[in-house]
Amino acid sequence: MRMYDLIMKKRDGDELTTEEINFFVGGYTDGSIPDYQVSALLMAIYFQKMNKRETADLTMAMVNSGDTIDLSAIEGVKVDKHSTGGVGDTTTLILGPIVAAAGVPVAKMSGRGLGHTGGTIDKLEAFEGFSVAMSIEKFMQNVNGVKIAIGGQTADLAPADKKLYALRDVTATVDNMSLIAGSIMSKKIASGADAIVLDIKTGSGAFMKNEDDAFELAREMVDIGNNVGRNTIGVITDMDQPLGFAVGNALEVKEAIDTLKGEGPEDLTELCLTLGAHMLVLGKKAKDAQEARKILKDIIKSGKGLQKLRELVVAQGGNPAYVDDASLFPVPAIVEEVISNVKGYVKAIKADDIGRAALVLGAGRETKESIIDLAVGIVLHKKIGDFVKKGEAIATIYANDAQKQKISTKMVLDAYEIVQEEIKAKPLIKGIVTKDGITRY
Amino acid sequence: MRMYDLIMKKRDGDELTTEEINFFVGGYTDGSIPDYQVSALLMAIYFQKMNKRETADLTMAMVNSGDTIDLSAIEGVKVDKHSTGGVGDTTTLILGPIVAAAGVPVAKMSGRGLGHTGGTIDKLEAFEGFSVAMSIEKFMQNVNGVKIAIGGQTADLAPADKKLYALRDVTATVDNMSLIAGSIMSKKIASGADAIVLDIKTGSGAFMKNEDDAFELAREMVDIGNNVGRNTIGVITDMDQPLGFAVGNALEVKEAIDTLKGEGPEDLTELCLTLGAHMLVLGKKAKDAQEARKILKDIIKSGKGLQKLRELVVAQGGNPAYVDDASLFPVPAIVEEVISNVKGYVKAIKADDIGRAALVLGAGRETKESIIDLAVGIVLHKKIGDFVKKGEAIATIYANDAQKQKISTKMVLDAYEIVQEEIKAKPLIKGIVTKDGITRY
Repeated sequence: MRMYDLIMKKRDGDELTTEEINFFVGGYTDGSIPDYQVSALLMAIYFQKMNKRETADLTMAMVNSGDTIDLSAIEGVKVDKHSTGGVGDTTTLILGPIVAAAGVPVAKMSGRGLGHTGGTIDKLEAFEGFSVAMSIEKFMQNVNGVKIAIGGQTADLAPADKKLYALRDVTATVDNMSLIAGSIMSKKIASGADAIVLDIKTGSGAFMKNEDDAFELAREMVDIGNNVGRNTIGVITDMDQPLGFAVGNALEVKEAIDTLKGEGPEDLTELCLTLGAHMLVLGKKAKDAQEARKILKDIIKSGKGLQKLRELVVAQGGNPAYVDDASLFPVPAIVEEVISNVKGYVKAIKADDIGRAALVLGAGRETKESIIDLAVGIVLHKKIGDFVKKGEAIATIYANDAQKQKISTKMVLDAYEIVQEEIKAKPLIKGIVTKDGITRY
Repeated sequence: MRMYDLIMKKRDGDELTTEEINFFVGGYTDGSIPDYQVSALLMAIYFQKMNKRETADLTMAMVNSGDTIDLSAIEGVKVDKHSTGGVGDTTTLILGPIVAAAGVPVAKMSGRGLGHTGGTIDKLEAFEGFSVAMSIEKFMQNVNGVKIAIGGQTADLAPADKKLYALRDVTATVDNMSLIAGSIMSKKIASGADAIVLDIKTGSGAFMKNEDDAFELAREMVDIGNNVGRNTIGVITDMDQPLGFAVGNALEVKEAIDTLKGEGPEDLTELCLTLGAHMLVLGKKAKDAQEARKILKDIIKSGKGLQKLRELVVAQGGNPAYVDDASLFPVPAIVEEVISNVKGYVKAIKADDIGRAALVLGAGRETKESIIDLAVGIVLHKKIGDFVKKGEAIATIYANDAQKQKISTKMVLDAYEIVQEEIKAKPLIKGIVTKDGITRY
């Protein structure tokens, strides 16, 4: 088999066989096929696309390029959740506990990563003493015991995907649905999940700016999952403004605690109930989404969700007092309101710009070496559709540096678009994609 | 300027600016832009094409990537000829002398290269003592004196083209008219020609199997030439069978001498008159192709063409006695006829296979290190449309190894398609492309 022939085949619009896909992914991973041939193939794929079978084969070839996590020691159906990323997204800290409380095992391996705010691990470290360092046996034991564990990702999952993504990133071949979907799904599948609920964000703050593209990506990922024997569902959700109110690490943890108490932001609560309901159905803890939703609401109401968070914190060495006393979380030196100098209705909040305003304060990592300031961030007071009076606070900045606070304040003001005509809030959940098809709300 | 943006621009079907094309060709040549980005761009070009301006810019960027030969010390309009390659193509050995005899300066830099038979230099070395080793001053002096000189190519012409071609060759991005045309034209332009006559072959023995593609390629090259101020004309010619009868080095030289005597194969003579006539017109030695053709016929008839070959051989240290006594050329140990075991009309002769049959005998180079056997080769006796009797010789093999002779004989027999219905010979000249348009015959 020659890489040249594969490039020509795809260039001419022909289908690559399973064997051919394994050949190129394997050869690229082990270094026997050079970058310049792979980038030519990627560009040919950009133009000629891949069909469902090719996409599933590519995904599995990437899964098989490295370690796969064996979760068979954990009882029950392991359901994973993946979000395509946005701003102010604290869902894991809420979803994990409520779903675990319903009996679905949550075995989460998380990274730290770059971004506007830290990853799930960074946020959990706001609980004094909390640690993700544990043996694989201890991890499994925790999941079987308290039904939830959050581990640091140490395995070499889908190295082919890492190498291919790095190449796509510099050769303008990122924007292909099969390649994007395969990249995300390969990591989820290698992580050992039996079933997957996908939260595909769309809007100004999301990777998929266009709603149709988001549905198309969801369909690709759902098809991959089901093609390789993982029950997969995609939920398309709005990211035209930050989710919830808080953007920042300790701030988001506090918001998650509020939500687990039933006092969280409406949109964040709704998203957790929707995604959680699908997780319960896939995890065979409810017969349909309606029943699952009722179970989850009861878990929040009864305090079982908050109790599960306490158990998670204790199981991983953290101080559970934080769960009941928010004043223990780190507080920054400066807390200043962002005051509107106009009146009107909020038409849009550029989520990306709010994220960057949090990054400026030190809430996230610009490089792998950056140290996160857990205390800083932004809390929004107004969301799309809300009326703002002149002189009213639209947000509060939590900062440890006056200069950075000023820059961030300006960025938050600029991120808000305030107009005179009344604006209606947009629905959060835009639709759902299952193996049976697409439903738009 | 970032290479990433250029790839994305072309991927999205946009035009690259002159500055952008210079940036990527320059960056690739000096190593600052990596292979994998260039191959992605090449594949994007494959799908999105380049317009006339981009193609001309690419060509000139490749020209400017290395040395260019200054022929200004030579009097008159320097007209170069380029053939896209075929089997049994001896035109340079005939065209050079007759065009020089008509007063058009022929300043030819040739390579040795790989192929079924040697290059022009290898063939000329069949004249005992002939050498291409000379100073650039001596070369110019010869052209001004005897109007013709054949030098070895020492300058580093269009290194960007060499690098790009090598990359295209392994990434399935060769087949793009702009890239093919730019590659050929960059070398011709760097060689210093004022005007160029292109011989674009089409048919089973040519790179362009399809006639429409050959016309399209000719149009691309003619447009490049004229866009960068080089008067350029393209002639589309048949390569559905070998040109002339001889395939091999000394054998082709003898055939060239016969043609200069007016006793050569009809097709080879016709091709030389056609290409030569355009060279005379571009070189301002005739007002139109008709007048030019008459001049060239007179040159052959009067023996001035043969005399010019003698002058060339003498000027470069060769023994001119060979011109008049063909028996001096090296003769191989084995001369055996290829006998037809069927009767009928020749419908096709796979030119490529005849070429490979000559290569097997040792007439060409398989690798750069191969040593050419000047004596060996094949002389065809039958061409398309000819009637063959059972037991009649269709060709003669000249060999120095009985085993190779047997293999070659089999290959020649297999290359001939002989059928029962009468077959008409096809016209050699299929059309002409000038800056004013395409004329098909």
